[in-house]
Amino acid sequence: MFRLEAEIIAIGSELLTSHCIDTNSLYLIEKLNSIGIEVKFKTIVRDKEEDIIQCIKNAISRSQIIIATGGLGPTEDDITRECFSKALKRKLIYYPEIEEKIRERFRKRGLSMPLICKKQAYILEGAKVLMNEWGTAPGMKIKEGNKLLFILPGPPKELKPMFEKYIFHELKKLSKQFVCSKSIKITGLTESQTETLISDLYKKIENPKISILAYPGQIEIRLIAHSDKNYEAAESLVENMIDKFRERLKNNIFSTSGEELEEVIGKLLKERKETLAVAESCTGGLLSNRITNVSGSSNYFERGFVTYSNEAKIENLGVPKDLILKYGAVSKEVAEAMAIGVRKIAKTDYGLSITGIAGPTGGTPEKPVGLVYIGLAWKDGVLVTRNQFLGDRESIKFQSTQKALDMLRRHLIQKT
Amino acid sequence: MFRLEAEIIAIGSELLTSHCIDTNSLYLIEKLNSIGIEVKFKTIVRDKEEDIIQCIKNAISRSQIIIATGGLGPTEDDITRECFSKALKRKLIYYPEIEEKIRERFRKRGLSMPLICKKQAYILEGAKVLMNEWGTAPGMKIKEGNKLLFILPGPPKELKPMFEKYIFHELKKLSKQFVCSKSIKITGLTESQTETLISDLYKKIENPKISILAYPGQIEIRLIAHSDKNYEAAESLVENMIDKFRERLKNNIFSTSGEELEEVIGKLLKERKETLAVAESCTGGLLSNRITNVSGSSNYFERGFVTYSNEAKIENLGVPKDLILKYGAVSKEVAEAMAIGVRKIAKTDYGLSITGIAGPTGGTPEKPVGLVYIGLAWKDGVLVTRNQFLGDRESIKFQSTQKALDMLRRHLIQKT
Repeated sequence: MFRLEAEIIAIGSELLTSHCIDTNSLYLIEKLNSIGIEVKFKTIVRDKEEDIIQCIKNAISRSQIIIATGGLGPTEDDITRECFSKALKRKLIYYPEIEEKIRERFRKRGLSMPLICKKQAYILEGAKVLMNEWGTAPGMKIKEGNKLLFILPGPPKELKPMFEKYIFHELKKLSKQFVCSKSIKITGLTESQTETLISDLYKKIENPKISILAYPGQIEIRLIAHSDKNYEAAESLVENMIDKFRERLKNNIFSTSGEELEEVIGKLLKERKETLAVAESCTGGLLSNRITNVSGSSNYFERGFVTYSNEAKIENLGVPKDLILKYGAVSKEVAEAMAIGVRKIAKTDYGLSITGIAGPTGGTPEKPVGLVYIGLAWKDGVLVTRNQFLGDRESIKFQSTQKALDMLRRHLIQKT
Repeated sequence: MFRLEAEIIAIGSELLTSHCIDTNSLYLIEKLNSIGIEVKFKTIVRDKEEDIIQCIKNAISRSQIIIATGGLGPTEDDITRECFSKALKRKLIYYPEIEEKIRERFRKRGLSMPLICKKQAYILEGAKVLMNEWGTAPGMKIKEGNKLLFILPGPPKELKPMFEKYIFHELKKLSKQFVCSKSIKITGLTESQTETLISDLYKKIENPKISILAYPGQIEIRLIAHSDKNYEAAESLVENMIDKFRERLKNNIFSTSGEELEEVIGKLLKERKETLAVAESCTGGLLSNRITNVSGSSNYFERGFVTYSNEAKIENLGVPKDLILKYGAVSKEVAEAMAIGVRKIAKTDYGLSITGIAGPTGGTPEKPVGLVYIGLAWKDGVLVTRNQFLGDRESIKFQSTQKALDMLRRHLIQKT
């Protein structure tokens, strides 16, 4: 499918622990895919000479483009330079001007360069130096036969700008591919419902390549197309497929431009110059938090109440005490009173409310964990849904806020 | 350091995209490390026959224990079985009893088995079948010379219980190592302050192995020790080091048992039978959300206000309008009034308040993005801190809530 193929070698024992995610590789894969280069192998290797040398030799034997990251620091563990020297049988050559640049960096911070940093001034014979303006260790570019090797420092704050500056454009030219990728975000359908609706449209189609990611409360369809003609050709492959999906998935699609649900409702409210207030119980502030993660949300978000106790529901939202006594705090009636109450108190166009049982404790046979009532109040009416979510506490909290935001979204677009 | 070494092969093109994190490997690494087995290589390979075969051959040539995951599903892309068959020169043998189990699984759901699932009933010659009670594809265990190979299905919900049931205990016996790992969580110090305080204690020490992870607002020190005698020996290595760290880091340590800050303050409040209410502006509900992520938080968390607008601060918390006009909503005075106000209205022992500028817009030269005032009110007093946080909107929100929780924590332990 893609013509150029690359291999990534991530070097560092810390990458083989359970608490370290190799974000560099995710970044590199994204950038490489965006210019039509497929990654065929990613190897993570600890800081051990024989292991690293073997990885390098393997990579050269099988891949056209190799990007190695990490192990260029000044400590004893950092042996990437030496390993490439041995694997490629190339000498390491001392560059006084690189040492001077490193010394300069320390001087600017009022420090003198520790002796151990001197090794960062050694470069493989025949390599092109990739200067590092964001840290001390320079990168390298090496031509080995018809293979192209890049060595980059491990810290993401150095790797990313260096990749952008020295590698991305060169590889883009080499790749000669134009790539367009977009994603469709969906809520209100399960993964299997989505699959059933659209699978006949994309099975057996290779360009665009389609992948479906399912999260609780959200499905994402990624489309990536390529063309050797121009970007527009790749884009129209993606757009045509999106149009076909839209016919089937309709309003369940809330975004085709990468936006989250809270951003979509933010835009809709802003356009309409309308305002929102929320009252939440079991979600404990997550709904407000998601809404206010959007910069500029103060334009439409007026206030939120986390009415965890019954007293808070009564005192702050004006929910009648009798209603709670009669139906319980987790009930259609209380959700409705919360939504109406918060809208009235905050003097907003919309009031959203959530009351339920997030678990893991607190469930009963009549009102099990995951039972959540969600209310939406507006000028002329109120709507309450009864939901039964599955999952752990955090997942139930998330799904509840997702449903609440989606109820508002569907109400807003339906009005148009 | 560790005697037994393992290699992981993760098979699947989706793992070489930028949106898929290989959580299986993180899980496997954690489990293997916990029994003293070090992972020397992790290779991720796409669904392509020649690539997978090469990975398998490489692994057998260099590693004692190999765990391969993924590619056992029923679709055309799933070729792990065939690749092992070719790499190891072992036939695939049809097991009618496995097909019957798969059929049974479908029958229970009222479905008939799709024909493509039949290939999951094929097992490598000489392999031990690892039955899959959590999905359809069985796993395999293979002895190849003195090497031990395990093949597991990719879905984490199948892989994890299968690893627990069939592999973990066998490898634990083989490893003959006792391992103890703990972590220290710190807030109120930067990474370099932490390093300066403790680096002389652990540099050059290999057992326990120490790693320091820094997040905005939180530092974590991981300690992992091993012994070939017994668990107690490993544990005492870890505990001795923790004691040394504690002497230096004192109250900045909030947990040595893995607990998050919100869990720590939850325990402290529960012990004291005291209650809390919060009022937040720029954090938009995140503080309430974190507090209520702890199951049982309704015992001490009474309510929260997300007073995004000035009106909400005035109406719901009783902040004097003049105070906001005179000092601005982001000020020491307003933070103080919010903390005192929320405590009074909710009738709780403590009131916590946050008001600031989360950015990226809204900053001024006098009140820049990241300026956050945090207030804590109790029976006899009130404390307000002025903070200048760095980072993006979400990071500033997180650091603000971290500081608020930590102010309460320090107040609570100081009272003891």
